[in-house]
Amino acid sequence: MAYSNAHAPSAPELPESFGHQLNEEGRYSYAYPHGASGQSNQKFGSSGMFPPETHPDIVRSFESADRDRSGFLDESELRQALSFSGYDGISHRTIRVLVFIYKSPADSLLRLGPKEYVELWNCLAQWRAKFDRHDRDKSGTMSSLELRDAFYQLGYMIPSSVLQLIISNFDDGTGKTVDLCFDTFLECGMIVKGLTEKFKEKDPGYTGYATLSYDVFMSMVIPFVASYD
Amino acid sequence: MAYSNAHAPSAPELPESFGHQLNEEGRYSYAYPHGASGQSNQKFGSSGMFPPETHPDIVRSFESADRDRSGFLDESELRQALSFSGYDGISHRTIRVLVFIYKSPADSLLRLGPKEYVELWNCLAQWRAKFDRHDRDKSGTMSSLELRDAFYQLGYMIPSSVLQLIISNFDDGTGKTVDLCFDTFLECGMIVKGLTEKFKEKDPGYTGYATLSYDVFMSMVIPFVASYD
Repeated sequence: MAYSNAHAPSAPELPESFGHQLNEEGRYSYAYPHGASGQSNQKFGSSGMFPPETHPDIVRSFESADRDRSGFLDESELRQALSFSGYDGISHRTIRVLVFIYKSPADSLLRLGPKEYVELWNCLAQWRAKFDRHDRDKSGTMSSLELRDAFYQLGYMIPSSVLQLIISNFDDGTGKTVDLCFDTFLECGMIVKGLTEKFKEKDPGYTGYATLSYDVFMSMVIPFVASYD
Repeated sequence: MAYSNAHAPSAPELPESFGHQLNEEGRYSYAYPHGASGQSNQKFGSSGMFPPETHPDIVRSFESADRDRSGFLDESELRQALSFSGYDGISHRTIRVLVFIYKSPADSLLRLGPKEYVELWNCLAQWRAKFDRHDRDKSGTMSSLELRDAFYQLGYMIPSSVLQLIISNFDDGTGKTVDLCFDTFLECGMIVKGLTEKFKEKDPGYTGYATLSYDVFMSMVIPFVASYD
């Protein structure tokens, strides 16, 4: 579905440095170097209050969507909150992945507190800006071939073999690449980010290798695949 | 989408033993023991001709869908062939996963030859029969809670932690489980089957553990996630 620029988020611009998380080790191509967003959920701890100087629009969108005043957003409330913020038509599948990635590790439920929501919001602002920069004709779509540039500019050092696989997933089966709407661009990027962070949890020494049991492997991967849509 | 029993496949019943591939090692819960469907693509070798005694309906559906007479079915031709066979409304995402799992390993293209098509067809017949057995009210859907029974009866010895994750992927975000149409049931099962076989390729000694590089891990998983839909 095309994204309507008429409802573009009204939050302040992010600092130029934000989102530049290029891998300086060069040892291998992690999407994020350690110390970057990979651990960002820990940075704030779990849920609680909004971080100081949170933009009022962000607080407003959270509070308007938190219908049961639980202090958390479940998936449907998050979808609503993001729609208040101008992110329309994000699929259930993408929302599920977003919650899975941004939820507090300490929370057994699939929901976001204020601090996790702000993290997600900031990330979306980055991705939105990147998408718009690549959507040169303002059609609300970008070519899947532009994914590579967009990922690299977002600090995703994805091996070209993997990038090829991702891009091939977005052709129509005849090899003809299709245009991506913001939702698909976001889902794709979040999956790369999420899988990379899962892998890094199993590779604390950043060797580029992890030994996984079958159960662990399946548990790492399943949340990113088959899902209610 | 609901499956119409009016177009039920007309191929002969499969032998009782077919699909009973329970793990006799008990060492850990692989969805398939070695020697079972995991290696089944090798059994026939790649594409070529139909295996002896292939049911004429299967041959007919292949030949009717192979519009360019290439001797292979690409994704859109496969979708057509399966629709001729009574499998209506299988999503692009599921078709992509089916081709990825059943294509000849020797073929760099995403397409199926006659032999791979027969293998897929036989597998679908099993899954269809299992689905119908669980769709007690003939509504065209089954409860996601019944996935466990269905998987076990298909020989999928899935760790309950993993099964829980799969089932939670099919609730509507509020914890309320939803009914699955055949397409979703199939997609879910094929993802488990496919990921398990990928893992087994990296664990030839069947130890239950595999050491993976980041690139290999991503390449194993990406084809099952973000995809044109």
